[in-house]
Amino acid sequence: MEKSHFISSISETPIPEFEAGLDPSSEHGADLRFHGVVRDREDGRVITGIDYSAYRPMADNELQAVIDAMSGEHPDHRVAIHHRLGFVPAGEASILIRVQTAHSASAFELCREYLRRIKTSVPIWKAPIFQEIAT
Amino acid sequence: MEKSHFISSISETPIPEFEAGLDPSSEHGADLRFHGVVRDREDGRVITGIDYSAYRPMADNELQAVIDAMSGEHPDHRVAIHHRLGFVPAGEASILIRVQTAHSASAFELCREYLRRIKTSVPIWKAPIFQEIAT
Repeated sequence: MEKSHFISSISETPIPEFEAGLDPSSEHGADLRFHGVVRDREDGRVITGIDYSAYRPMADNELQAVIDAMSGEHPDHRVAIHHRLGFVPAGEASILIRVQTAHSASAFELCREYLRRIKTSVPIWKAPIFQEIAT
Repeated sequence: MEKSHFISSISETPIPEFEAGLDPSSEHGADLRFHGVVRDREDGRVITGIDYSAYRPMADNELQAVIDAMSGEHPDHRVAIHHRLGFVPAGEASILIRVQTAHSASAFELCREYLRRIKTSVPIWKAPIFQEIAT
Protein backbone atom coordinates (compact mmCIF):
# COMPACT_ATOMS: atom_id res chain seq x y z
CA MET A 1 0.00 0.00 0.00
CA GLU A 2 1.34 3.40 -0.90
CA LYS A 3 1.98 5.60 2.11
CA SER A 4 -0.08 8.72 2.47
CA HIS A 5 1.57 11.99 1.55
CA PHE A 6 -0.54 13.83 4.11
CA ILE A 7 0.08 12.55 7.61
CA SER A 8 -1.15 13.99 10.88
CA SER A 9 -1.36 12.89 14.47
CA ILE A 10 -2.10 14.30 17.89
CA SER A 11 -0.88 12.11 20.74
CA GLU A 12 1.52 11.73 23.65
CA THR A 13 4.26 10.47 21.34
CA PRO A 14 7.39 12.66 21.59
CA ILE A 15 8.33 14.52 18.42
CA PRO A 16 11.68 12.73 17.80
CA GLU A 17 9.91 9.37 17.87
CA PHE A 18 7.33 10.54 15.32
CA GLU A 19 10.04 12.15 13.22
CA ALA A 20 12.15 8.98 13.12
CA GLY A 21 9.37 7.22 11.22
CA LEU A 22 9.20 9.76 8.40
CA ASP A 23 10.33 8.82 4.91
CA PRO A 24 12.88 10.65 2.81
CA SER A 25 12.00 11.45 -0.79
CA SER A 26 14.15 11.76 -3.89
CA GLU A 27 11.41 13.66 -5.75
CA HIS A 28 11.39 16.61 -3.38
CA GLY A 29 14.36 18.94 -3.28
CA ALA A 30 13.11 20.78 -0.21
CA ASP A 31 12.41 19.21 3.19
CA LEU A 32 11.48 21.88 5.71
CA ARG A 33 10.79 21.08 9.35
CA PHE A 34 9.33 23.51 11.84
CA HIS A 35 9.66 22.49 15.47
CA GLY A 36 7.67 24.52 17.95
CA VAL A 37 9.68 24.31 21.15
CA VAL A 38 8.49 24.89 24.73
CA ARG A 39 10.33 27.90 26.13
CA ASP A 40 11.45 28.04 29.73
CA ARG A 41 9.48 31.19 30.55
CA GLU A 42 5.86 32.26 30.40
CA ASP A 43 5.06 35.90 31.11
CA GLY A 44 8.49 36.31 32.67
CA ARG A 45 8.12 33.42 35.12
CA VAL A 46 10.23 30.28 34.92
CA ILE A 47 8.29 27.20 33.87
CA THR A 48 9.34 23.57 33.79
CA GLY A 49 7.15 22.80 30.82
CA ILE A 50 3.68 22.94 29.36
CA ASP A 51 0.88 20.46 29.74
CA TYR A 52 -1.06 20.13 26.47
CA SER A 53 -4.53 18.68 26.29
CA ALA A 54 -7.24 18.37 23.69
CA TYR A 55 -10.63 16.93 23.05
CA ARG A 56 -9.13 14.53 20.56
CA PRO A 57 -12.02 13.95 18.12
CA MET A 58 -12.45 17.69 17.64
CA ALA A 59 -8.73 18.45 17.39
CA ASP A 60 -8.17 15.56 14.97
CA ASN A 61 -11.06 16.77 12.79
CA GLU A 62 -9.83 20.33 12.69
CA LEU A 63 -6.28 19.29 11.86
CA GLN A 64 -7.57 17.00 9.11
CA ALA A 65 -9.65 19.89 7.75
CA VAL A 66 -6.50 22.05 7.54
CA ILE A 67 -4.69 19.30 5.65
CA ASP A 68 -7.64 18.64 3.33
CA ALA A 69 -7.84 22.33 2.44
CA MET A 70 -4.09 22.73 1.95
CA SER A 71 -3.74 19.55 -0.11
CA GLY A 72 -6.61 20.72 -2.32
CA GLU A 73 -5.08 24.16 -2.81
CA HIS A 74 -1.52 22.87 -3.26
CA PRO A 75 -1.55 19.26 -4.47
CA ASP A 76 2.18 19.07 -5.18
CA HIS A 77 3.54 18.69 -1.69
CA ARG A 78 3.76 16.28 1.19
CA VAL A 79 3.21 17.12 4.79
CA ALA A 80 3.60 15.39 8.15
CA ILE A 81 2.27 17.08 11.27
CA HIS A 82 2.44 15.88 14.83
CA HIS A 83 1.24 17.67 17.95
CA ARG A 84 2.34 16.20 21.24
CA LEU A 85 -0.08 16.01 24.17
CA GLY A 86 0.59 15.74 27.89
CA PHE A 87 3.54 17.32 29.69
CA VAL A 88 6.27 18.62 27.40
CA PRO A 89 9.40 19.81 29.25
CA ALA A 90 10.95 23.17 28.39
CA GLY A 91 13.44 22.72 25.55
CA GLU A 92 11.46 19.94 23.87
CA ALA A 93 9.18 20.33 20.87
CA SER A 94 5.42 20.22 21.14
CA ILE A 95 4.73 20.37 17.40
CA LEU A 96 6.43 19.36 14.17
CA ILE A 97 5.33 20.52 10.75
CA ARG A 98 7.34 18.92 7.98
CA VAL A 99 6.72 19.98 4.39
CA GLN A 100 8.33 18.47 1.31
CA THR A 101 8.18 20.22 -2.05
CA ALA A 102 10.08 20.10 -5.33
CA HIS A 103 11.63 23.53 -4.74
CA SER A 104 12.38 25.57 -1.66
CA ALA A 105 10.18 28.67 -2.06
CA SER A 106 6.91 26.78 -1.74
CA ALA A 107 8.20 24.77 1.24
CA PHE A 108 8.64 27.98 3.23
CA GLU A 109 5.26 29.33 2.15
CA LEU A 110 3.33 26.14 2.87
CA CYS A 111 5.00 25.36 6.19
CA ARG A 112 4.29 28.86 7.45
CA GLU A 113 0.70 28.65 6.25
CA TYR A 114 0.17 25.29 7.98
CA LEU A 115 1.43 26.80 11.21
CA ARG A 116 -0.84 29.81 10.85
CA ARG A 117 -3.93 27.71 10.17
CA ILE A 118 -3.19 25.21 12.95
CA LYS A 119 -2.72 27.99 15.49
CA THR A 120 -5.98 29.55 14.36
CA SER A 121 -8.22 26.53 14.15
CA VAL A 122 -6.97 23.44 15.99
CA PRO A 123 -8.17 23.51 19.61
CA ILE A 124 -5.29 22.37 21.81
CA TRP A 125 -5.08 23.75 25.33
CA LYS A 126 -1.87 24.75 27.09
CA ALA A 127 -1.24 24.86 30.83
CA PRO A 128 2.20 26.18 31.78
CA ILE A 129 3.70 24.40 34.79
CA PHE A 130 5.46 26.96 36.95
CA GLN A 131 8.57 26.07 38.86
CA GLU A 132 8.06 25.61 42.59
CA ILE A 133 9.91 28.23 44.56
CA ALA A 134 11.81 26.72 47.47
CA THR A 135 10.90 28.62 50.67
CA MET B 1 33.38 27.44 27.09
CA GLU B 2 30.09 28.67 25.73
CA LYS B 3 29.19 27.14 22.41
CA SER B 4 28.91 29.42 19.42
CA HIS B 5 25.45 30.38 18.30
CA PHE B 6 26.63 30.68 14.71
CA ILE B 7 28.00 27.40 13.43
CA SER B 8 28.98 26.51 9.88
CA SER B 9 30.85 23.75 8.15
CA ILE B 10 31.54 22.45 4.68
CA SER B 11 32.81 18.89 4.61
CA GLU B 12 32.11 15.29 3.62
CA THR B 13 30.19 14.67 6.85
CA PRO B 14 26.62 13.49 6.09
CA ILE B 15 23.86 15.83 7.24
CA PRO B 16 22.30 13.49 9.85
CA GLU B 17 25.68 13.13 11.57
CA PHE B 18 26.11 16.92 11.75
CA GLU B 19 22.51 17.36 12.85
CA ALA B 20 22.85 14.84 15.68
CA GLY B 21 25.40 17.10 17.35
CA LEU B 22 23.16 20.15 17.45
CA ASP B 23 21.88 21.45 20.75
CA PRO B 24 18.27 22.09 21.68
CA SER B 25 17.37 25.41 23.31
CA SER B 26 14.70 26.33 25.81
CA GLU B 27 15.03 30.04 24.96
CA HIS B 28 13.94 29.64 21.36
CA GLY B 29 10.36 28.73 20.56
CA ALA B 30 11.07 28.16 16.89
CA ASP B 31 13.54 25.64 15.48
CA LEU B 32 13.36 25.59 11.69
CA ARG B 33 15.43 23.21 9.60
CA PHE B 34 15.75 23.39 5.84
CA HIS B 35 17.19 20.31 4.20
CA GLY B 36 18.15 20.65 0.54
CA VAL B 37 17.72 17.16 -0.86
CA VAL B 38 19.29 15.69 -4.00
CA ARG B 39 16.53 14.86 -6.45
CA ASP B 40 16.67 11.77 -8.64
CA ARG B 41 16.44 13.70 -11.92
CA GLU B 42 18.41 16.42 -13.62
CA ASP B 43 17.01 17.94 -16.82
CA GLY B 44 14.66 14.96 -17.10
CA ARG B 45 17.43 12.34 -16.90
CA VAL B 46 17.72 9.90 -14.02
CA ILE B 47 20.72 10.53 -11.78
CA THR B 48 22.13 8.46 -8.95
CA GLY B 49 23.32 11.51 -7.09
CA ILE B 50 25.40 14.67 -7.22
CA ASP B 51 29.09 15.12 -6.61
CA TYR B 52 29.75 18.38 -4.75
CA SER B 53 33.14 20.04 -4.67
CA ALA B 54 34.55 23.33 -3.50
CA TYR B 55 37.75 25.23 -3.09
CA ARG B 56 37.38 25.02 0.65
CA PRO B 57 39.15 28.20 1.83
CA MET B 58 37.04 30.32 -0.50
CA ALA B 59 33.77 28.54 0.24
CA ASP B 60 34.41 28.66 4.00
CA ASN B 61 35.17 32.39 3.80
CA GLU B 62 32.05 33.18 1.80
CA LEU B 63 29.83 31.15 4.12
CA GLN B 64 31.37 32.86 7.13
CA ALA B 65 30.73 36.23 5.47
CA VAL B 66 27.04 35.34 5.06
CA ILE B 67 26.83 34.40 8.74
CA ASP B 68 28.71 37.51 9.87
CA ALA B 69 26.37 39.74 7.90
CA MET B 70 23.21 37.95 9.06
CA SER B 71 24.27 37.84 12.72
CA GLY B 72 25.03 41.56 12.56
CA GLU B 73 21.67 42.37 10.98
CA HIS B 74 19.68 40.00 13.22
CA PRO B 75 21.55 39.35 16.49
CA ASP B 76 18.70 37.49 18.18
CA HIS B 77 18.96 34.13 16.49
CA ARG B 78 21.12 31.06 16.28
CA VAL B 79 22.08 29.28 13.11
CA ALA B 80 23.82 26.07 12.16
CA ILE B 81 24.69 25.44 8.53
CA HIS B 82 26.34 22.42 7.00
CA HIS B 83 27.05 21.76 3.33
CA ARG B 84 28.10 18.26 2.45
CA LEU B 85 30.86 17.66 -0.11
CA GLY B 86 31.62 14.61 -2.24
CA PHE B 87 29.03 12.24 -3.65
CA VAL B 88 25.54 12.67 -2.19
CA PRO B 89 23.04 9.99 -3.31
CA ALA B 90 19.60 11.01 -4.56
CA GLY B 91 17.20 11.24 -1.63
CA GLU B 92 19.87 12.46 0.81
CA ALA B 93 20.42 16.04 1.89
CA SER B 94 23.35 18.10 0.67
CA ILE B 95 22.67 21.12 2.88
CA LEU B 96 21.10 21.87 6.23
CA ILE B 97 20.21 25.35 7.43
CA ARG B 98 18.88 25.35 10.97
CA VAL B 99 17.64 28.60 12.47
CA GLN B 100 16.45 29.10 16.05
CA THR B 101 14.51 32.19 17.06
CA ALA B 102 12.22 33.19 19.90
CA HIS B 103 9.17 33.25 17.63
CA SER B 104 8.27 31.55 14.38
CA ALA B 105 7.90 34.42 11.91
CA SER B 106 11.55 35.43 12.01
CA ALA B 107 12.70 31.80 11.77
CA PHE B 108 10.99 31.48 8.38
CA GLU B 109 12.36 34.82 7.18
CA LEU B 110 15.93 34.20 8.31
CA CYS B 111 16.15 30.62 7.09
CA ARG B 112 14.92 31.62 3.67
CA GLU B 113 17.34 34.54 3.56
CA TYR B 114 20.29 32.31 4.53
CA LEU B 115 19.38 29.96 1.70
CA ARG B 116 19.14 32.83 -0.78
CA ARG B 117 22.49 34.30 0.22
CA ILE B 118 24.27 30.94 0.26
CA LYS B 119 22.96 30.06 -3.20
CA THR B 120 24.10 33.46 -4.47
CA SER B 121 27.53 33.73 -2.91
CA VAL B 122 29.02 30.46 -1.69
CA PRO B 123 30.92 28.74 -4.53
CA ILE B 124 30.14 25.02 -4.38
CA TRP B 125 30.15 23.09 -7.64
CA LYS B 126 27.71 20.32 -8.55
CA ALA B 127 28.28 17.45 -10.96
CA PRO B 128 25.22 15.23 -11.48
CA ILE B 129 26.10 11.56 -11.84
CA PHE B 130 23.86 10.05 -14.51
CA GLN B 131 22.67 6.48 -14.28
CA GLU B 132 24.43 4.06 -16.62
CA ILE B 133 22.06 2.69 -19.22
CA ALA B 134 22.48 -1.09 -19.62
CA THR B 135 22.94 -1.95 -23.33
